[in-house]
Amino acid sequence: MSTYQYFLVDRPLPYVAHIQINRPSKLNSFFEAMWLEFKTIFDTLSRDSETRAIILSGAGDRAFTTGLDVQAASQSGALQQQAGTTPKTVDVARKAVEIKRHVEEFQNCISSVEKCEKPVICVMHGYSLGLAMDISTCADIRICSADTKFAVKEVDIGLAADIGTLTRLPKVVGNFSWVKDVSLSARIFGAEEAYRVGYVSQVVETKEKAIQAALKMAELIASKSPVAVQGTKELLNHARDHTVADSLRYTGVWNSAAIQTSDVQRAMLSGLKKTKPRFEKL
Amino acid sequence: MSTYQYFLVDRPLPYVAHIQINRPSKLNSFFEAMWLEFKTIFDTLSRDSETRAIILSGAGDRAFTTGLDVQAASQSGALQQQAGTTPKTVDVARKAVEIKRHVEEFQNCISSVEKCEKPVICVMHGYSLGLAMDISTCADIRICSADTKFAVKEVDIGLAADIGTLTRLPKVVGNFSWVKDVSLSARIFGAEEAYRVGYVSQVVETKEKAIQAALKMAELIASKSPVAVQGTKELLNHARDHTVADSLRYTGVWNSAAIQTSDVQRAMLSGLKKTKPRFEKL
Amino acid sequence: MSTYQYFLVDRPLPYVAHIQINRPSKLNSFFEAMWLEFKTIFDTLSRDSETRAIILSGAGDRAFTTGLDVQAASQSGALQQQAGTTPKTVDVARKAVEIKRHVEEFQNCISSVEKCEKPVICVMHGYSLGLAMDISTCADIRICSADTKFAVKEVDIGLAADIGTLTRLPKVVGNFSWVKDVSLSARIFGAEEAYRVGYVSQVVETKEKAIQAALKMAELIASKSPVAVQGTKELLNHARDHTVADSLRYTGVWNSAAIQTSDVQRAMLSGLKKTKPRFEKL
Amino acid sequence: MSTYQYFLVDRPLPYVAHIQINRPSKLNSFFEAMWLEFKTIFDTLSRDSETRAIILSGAGDRAFTTGLDVQAASQSGALQQQAGTTPKTVDVARKAVEIKRHVEEFQNCISSVEKCEKPVICVMHGYSLGLAMDISTCADIRICSADTKFAVKEVDIGLAADIGTLTRLPKVVGNFSWVKDVSLSARIFGAEEAYRVGYVSQVVETKEKAIQAALKMAELIASKSPVAVQGTKELLNHARDHTVADSLRYTGVWNSAAIQTSDVQRAMLSGLKKTKPRFEKL
Amino acid sequence: MSTYQYFLVDRPLPYVAHIQINRPSKLNSFFEAMWLEFKTIFDTLSRDSETRAIILSGAGDRAFTTGLDVQAASQSGALQQQAGTTPKTVDVARKAVEIKRHVEEFQNCISSVEKCEKPVICVMHGYSLGLAMDISTCADIRICSADTKFAVKEVDIGLAADIGTLTRLPKVVGNFSWVKDVSLSARIFGAEEAYRVGYVSQVVETKEKAIQAALKMAELIASKSPVAVQGTKELLNHARDHTVADSLRYTGVWNSAAIQTSDVQRAMLSGLKKTKPRFEKL
Amino acid sequence: MSTYQYFLVDRPLPYVAHIQINRPSKLNSFFEAMWLEFKTIFDTLSRDSETRAIILSGAGDRAFTTGLDVQAASQSGALQQQAGTTPKTVDVARKAVEIKRHVEEFQNCISSVEKCEKPVICVMHGYSLGLAMDISTCADIRICSADTKFAVKEVDIGLAADIGTLTRLPKVVGNFSWVKDVSLSARIFGAEEAYRVGYVSQVVETKEKAIQAALKMAELIASKSPVAVQGTKELLNHARDHTVADSLRYTGVWNSAAIQTSDVQRAMLSGLKKTKPRFEKL
Repeated sequence: MSTYQYFLVDRPLPYVAHIQINRPSKLNSFFEAMWLEFKTIFDTLSRDSETRAIILSGAGDRAFTTGLDVQAASQSGALQQQAGTTPKTVDVARKAVEIKRHVEEFQNCISSVEKCEKPVICVMHGYSLGLAMDISTCADIRICSADTKFAVKEVDIGLAADIGTLTRLPKVVGNFSWVKDVSLSARIFGAEEAYRVGYVSQVVETKEKAIQAALKMAELIASKSPVAVQGTKELLNHARDHTVADSLRYTGVWNSAAIQTSDVQRAMLSGLKKTKPRFEKL
Repeated sequence: MSTYQYFLVDRPLPYVAHIQINRPSKLNSFFEAMWLEFKTIFDTLSRDSETRAIILSGAGDRAFTTGLDVQAASQSGALQQQAGTTPKTVDVARKAVEIKRHVEEFQNCISSVEKCEKPVICVMHGYSLGLAMDISTCADIRICSADTKFAVKEVDIGLAADIGTLTRLPKVVGNFSWVKDVSLSARIFGAEEAYRVGYVSQVVETKEKAIQAALKMAELIASKSPVAVQGTKELLNHARDHTVADSLRYTGVWNSAAIQTSDVQRAMLSGLKKTKPRFEKL
Repeated sequence: MSTYQYFLVDRPLPYVAHIQINRPSKLNSFFEAMWLEFKTIFDTLSRDSETRAIILSGAGDRAFTTGLDVQAASQSGALQQQAGTTPKTVDVARKAVEIKRHVEEFQNCISSVEKCEKPVICVMHGYSLGLAMDISTCADIRICSADTKFAVKEVDIGLAADIGTLTRLPKVVGNFSWVKDVSLSARIFGAEEAYRVGYVSQVVETKEKAIQAALKMAELIASKSPVAVQGTKELLNHARDHTVADSLRYTGVWNSAAIQTSDVQRAMLSGLKKTKPRFEKL
Repeated sequence: MSTYQYFLVDRPLPYVAHIQINRPSKLNSFFEAMWLEFKTIFDTLSRDSETRAIILSGAGDRAFTTGLDVQAASQSGALQQQAGTTPKTVDVARKAVEIKRHVEEFQNCISSVEKCEKPVICVMHGYSLGLAMDISTCADIRICSADTKFAVKEVDIGLAADIGTLTRLPKVVGNFSWVKDVSLSARIFGAEEAYRVGYVSQVVETKEKAIQAALKMAELIASKSPVAVQGTKELLNHARDHTVADSLRYTGVWNSAAIQTSDVQRAMLSGLKKTKPRFEKL
Repeated sequence: MSTYQYFLVDRPLPYVAHIQINRPSKLNSFFEAMWLEFKTIFDTLSRDSETRAIILSGAGDRAFTTGLDVQAASQSGALQQQAGTTPKTVDVARKAVEIKRHVEEFQNCISSVEKCEKPVICVMHGYSLGLAMDISTCADIRICSADTKFAVKEVDIGLAADIGTLTRLPKVVGNFSWVKDVSLSARIFGAEEAYRVGYVSQVVETKEKAIQAALKMAELIASKSPVAVQGTKELLNHARDHTVADSLRYTGVWNSAAIQTSDVQRAMLSGLKKTKPRFEKL
Repeated sequence: MSTYQYFLVDRPLPYVAHIQINRPSKLNSFFEAMWLEFKTIFDTLSRDSETRAIILSGAGDRAFTTGLDVQAASQSGALQQQAGTTPKTVDVARKAVEIKRHVEEFQNCISSVEKCEKPVICVMHGYSLGLAMDISTCADIRICSADTKFAVKEVDIGLAADIGTLTRLPKVVGNFSWVKDVSLSARIFGAEEAYRVGYVSQVVETKEKAIQAALKMAELIASKSPVAVQGTKELLNHARDHTVADSLRYTGVWNSAAIQTSDVQRAMLSGLKKTKPRFEKL
């Protein structure tokens, strides 16, 4: 697989890619070049026919990511605009346009996880703050180790989270009182609480064991028909944002092509023969 | 009540209908004639003024339903289209149209549970796979016995579930990570897990006790004003698919007629007198 | 702070307002003059720059509120329309228009909690019936004491709840089976059940302790940047009713102005200096 | 082709069906049995592979249709409910439910024109009142003779049009001031006005010439790839009700199957060879 | 009828109210107190049972309105915020909140025309600039005299129109190229052009004759069943903002009460007897 | 300005860019490399502070563009997939995924015109077929010369137009009967017809004069505040796809930053002084 500057990407199992945020010395905090590369990786794997399931984790023992590297951000980008050092303009409306463009680009990079055609399992551990929430709400499945410390941290630096947490959190967790509690207070919450409210669907003792659990889950998903798996991700994400009537209609059109795949026969035959089916790449 | 070929329909209590999927020798698996009859029953009860609450369960000890009878399906309908024996056409676009029509008809039959004006309590037990999920997500209330084995089974036969599970599951369970886990992996999950994430709202030891619990619940609902009960179902389903502003507006228009019912006076009077109100049929 | 007739409003802590429904002799039940004043209070605090967080509770030991004062309602408003004493008209369509107008006004009054720019923490105890649900689903955070008795009571008086419960309950609790169970049966449920399904995010032993917990939470929220906090409430409510794409776009525009605030610098500086930031009023 | 009781259906050209409302002695006015048969015809032709374009017109010289046969309607259905002769119930809410069911069934019958997979050209002449508007707004293309007298007639019988005119008219004509003028006033308007505002896209001297024009148009459409034509109808109707982003996404999925048709090659080859392509049935 | 400070309101015909913007010396330009009173008038007439149709025009010969009185606006409200004299705050985010609140209040006042339950016929003449467009796009029917000079004037004072023109113009005129042309260029356009593109549905020689035409139209509308007329306005506005499926559903519920009116019988009976029906107030 | 391979881009007036499709020998027909470059140009100009208005036209006398270069397309991309020469796969579902990806990329390239922050005036002449419609419906303002020959050509090559025409045409022209007529028949229509139905808002004798008209319009727009102009484009496009309530809300937030610009003062001052304002770049 390709080599990247801020991320380790390898293939621990056939059809399974593992992406690690690789800046452990800075608790895997992000700056602009990193989220641009982040998008490149997900866009690439989205269409990589060797990949059927993706694991995303953070390198090192201490953090999935502590979010934005505020120091780095203060030297560029939106916060710099705000901070006012060498602004391109002092006109409020013009600064607003620059900020909006910047936020949209940043959102686009993180949304690449959601748009990725392949399922993404996010494994969190240690500090998982701010941008950690934006990223993980985009993932399909969230699991964490028992030591994870989560927070929607943005109000503590004077802003409403704008890279996706406030948009997606109410749609991945069905407990609006809790969503508002943690978003308004910026308080730290732990793995058990995350599991109880349904933010993560699995808690495992240690980071290592969480990676093992993710690998097992990814291996299982990768053994299925990629036509079925990728369609399932697409249709579930469509359902989240549409009425029942609209999604049923979309589903019918989607499957009008997908169901013509040979995977159906292969899967059914394997089911009867108790063998492991092999599916063409996608 | 009428007699049906694949379903037992009786009235165990006044105003309460009980529908049983009645093909226990095949684990209550479905083929096309069954889902057509299924729709007929729900459409009929929807407007049957003797019915105020409906229980749906599966006959026999082993299964609510194992879903599509793949053997039967391979001889007709969409999968047959796909399987390619005596196809009407080999043109991909034309086959796609036939598949889309077939899926829409199938969806319509299952959606009759959701469109039914009367509340539907779904009691699950044993194997509850594939179509069992499509059907039960349409029901209003889901309860199950402790032995239930659920699965969103479709990826295991090479396709994305297209009869409603992927559309409705994210709207009945507020744990998107779990929804994706079970939909992508097709793994079996049990009653406790279903209860913990909120897929069912009650787990009872045995099938018999689950039926008893459903009967008690149905009896309670059937004792209320049918104007109030049927309006409540309609307004909750509307809310799921619309903005708050839209649903408040719809609610105001709905109740502008409904609140003119004599049931309000009867219910309030009975409340004061501690008697049991009687309501005109609906 | 101003004096009101049916509500106690004081400021127990800087920037924190506490509103108490103050008709304990009638279990804090509501009649029309009360919900009009209710709206006045929330509209006023919404723009009161001395207020950054609001607690809403019910005076007395026995009830948050038992909902509509049916006796009072039977002498005016919609139910009177329905009850038929001195109707303005007997024409069904004209009565329907009057009812619709009445319901909309009532909805508007209760929705003022949701539209309030400041976060609202609702503390419930004792009887919390009918309108108690309409009101509390509008609040941002719900906590309750262990003795709380909740019910979506409306079907018991012959009508579908129309002041917001049926619209918002499916959006604040991600367990549609449970939502329908309690809405169709009108049964009482307790604090533990409310916590388990996520209707409240905290249960505390007694009413007094629940108020203490709310004060602590309010104090914390009030210590944050009001630009960040109020933006967070707005963006979370927007997300609930829009697609992910729409909310991301709205978020970008929102923050294009908000992020130009000096609060960002103050918050970050305080974070570095470990001091408590002070923010300009809003 | 089949024989129907209230409609003449023939095939004047290969792949072109012509449906005539056939009750000229009563100015082609409708009663319940007619709109049920109307739906049967459109549902049948929708899936009839011999049909690629449909013309809808009214038999006789005097009217396309004058709408509801009020005399007949007063003996059954919704207006009878309202008129109060032998009502099933006097309870307002229960009558409301019966009316709602009746209106929905009637709407469904008329909507069959819109849902029909094949394009429908509606030819109007003479009186084209009330239901004539509901029906023709469902059609794809509207043409009329110079003598046509249109009216959204319902307010003149005390009701808001509820079978589709008020829903679709603002979506087929981009002149909201005019739409409201004719809908609120119930005034008659003529062919020239209908053409000027874009309600019809063609005006022809006489009914006979209008039928000729429709036949020519239908013949042209029927000569094209049915995969392309039917997809075009579906995608235009989808666009009307969805955002641009949603429709582009739906379009991509739709064509992912449709574009695999052999019609593309046949059409392109014929284009090069200047021959007339022949397409497999659909 | 009541007396107002900035508007003349009289009743030239039974059930017909005429509102004149009454500041001709300043070309009927608006300042804040005026639009507050404007809302009061429309909210009052919306529920005034003596009113069935409303005409809105501008007093004097020279202008319907030239829009915002910029001089007055520069001393208060949003533009003053912007102009920076005695600002409450210099913080960009806090000024943004104040501006947003101000714009929303202003929008609410103008939207009262659209929300008014009774149809509003807007008669324009002379200068009809800026706010004239915001107001008239809210009206149901637009007619004008031949001398009218229209312009979406806002870009000429450095801002995007924010009181409704940009929101509603694309929904009342089906010519998006023209909508963008006049909105981006702020150029003056005349009555003929407004008629050709469908912004107005009638052009009359002089203001006096336009008022006469409006009176005639209002008289006609006022002679119809108010249940039918007001339902028609509501359903057309609903259709503009919803899918066909949603509006059909809303229509069915709306008419389930409305069609129970005695107006249907009265209207039909009058139709048969060729007499003029009389309808109860609404 | 930069040099491009398939397009001429120059700046005929200050702040005005002119893009010419530059493949006149092939009637400006497109192949994949062209639409990729097309997107690059619009994305660049979107953020180019020297550009305030854009003209798009086709080089040469004969055509704006005849659309897809079918010969080139048959050697690559979607049609090649379909044509079946050296397919990557024969599995229908896998081909469907490849086609969907291809269509989405193509759509994205063309949508760059709509997403461009600066207004785009499209000048059409001669043959303007197929992709010419997709492109021009994305533009803000459409003008054409008298000799233009338009067609929604796709059904003639066996497919439903999928790059945007079917999605946007019903939203830029308010005459659904005409939209369906031309989309289903693929017939050629001329400048007068395009003007009459509102597809173009101006027809000019010759291409040269059309360019002159566009330059004049662009110069006028470029003389206005870019904050106001770009906000106007954004808000009009938002309105097209959202409800009135949603767009009013978005507008308020948008202007809460935009109205703080110094352009308002500059524009108003210039208005008073009758001078030409100068605005900071954006």
